[in-house]
Amino acid sequence: MGAPPYHPELDPRVEALVTEVIGRVADKWTMIVLEALTQHAVLRFSELAKEVTGISQKMLTQTVRAMERDGLVIRTVRPVIPPHVDYRLTDLGHSLSEAFCGVWLWAEANVDRIEQARQDFDTRKIG
Amino acid sequence: MGAPPYHPELDPRVEALVTEVIGRVADKWTMIVLEALTQHAVLRFSELAKEVTGISQKMLTQTVRAMERDGLVIRTVRPVIPPHVDYRLTDLGHSLSEAFCGVWLWAEANVDRIEQARQDFDTRKIG
Repeated sequence: MGAPPYHPELDPRVEALVTEVIGRVADKWTMIVLEALTQHAVLRFSELAKEVTGISQKMLTQTVRAMERDGLVIRTVRPVIPPHVDYRLTDLGHSLSEAFCGVWLWAEANVDRIEQARQDFDTRKIG
Repeated sequence: MGAPPYHPELDPRVEALVTEVIGRVADKWTMIVLEALTQHAVLRFSELAKEVTGISQKMLTQTVRAMERDGLVIRTVRPVIPPHVDYRLTDLGHSLSEAFCGVWLWAEANVDRIEQARQDFDTRKIG
């Protein structure tokens, strides 16, 4: 069962900020971009778009921009011909990737249980 | 820096499922509901609505229903007068809450760095 992971009663100001930060980073696309940049170290925008299956160009642009603003990602414009932009994680981004690691491992370990739970739920709702 | 947290090249089928599961659970509201149920053990719908600041009734209904379907939450209808419904975590829900613990701790530890990064980013964009 484990102890509560976080104790917001300690400081309401910190609680509000933490909840806001969680709201920003606990996001499917942010996690998948973090994962891609953890594996590949440096990616151009077009390479990132290929790694993050199913994301629209607009959503990927918004996601990396928000991650840059939060200090998770460094965006570098390379003045070559043709010019290109590449992305890499900051130390802060790497530390978030490590924190999310437990969630990936959990998902990997529990895929079958979740599939089974969904089947059971759907059967109960139909039956 | 750390090693990549997950190695999807091992099995593309597992990769797709894990990414889908991450897409479901890496969600702000799911994390906050998990946190509230970790702290309070059992909550009625109305109590949960108070704990999860800023959520609409519709979004809370959708969130707890998806969590019930995924096997994270047990929903119990109490046949008292007036009847009420309460929610608690399953073992699977508790294990996800523990996996997310690292992300909460990360957010708590890095609130100041993120605030600073945002200020720097916004200053660069204006300047």
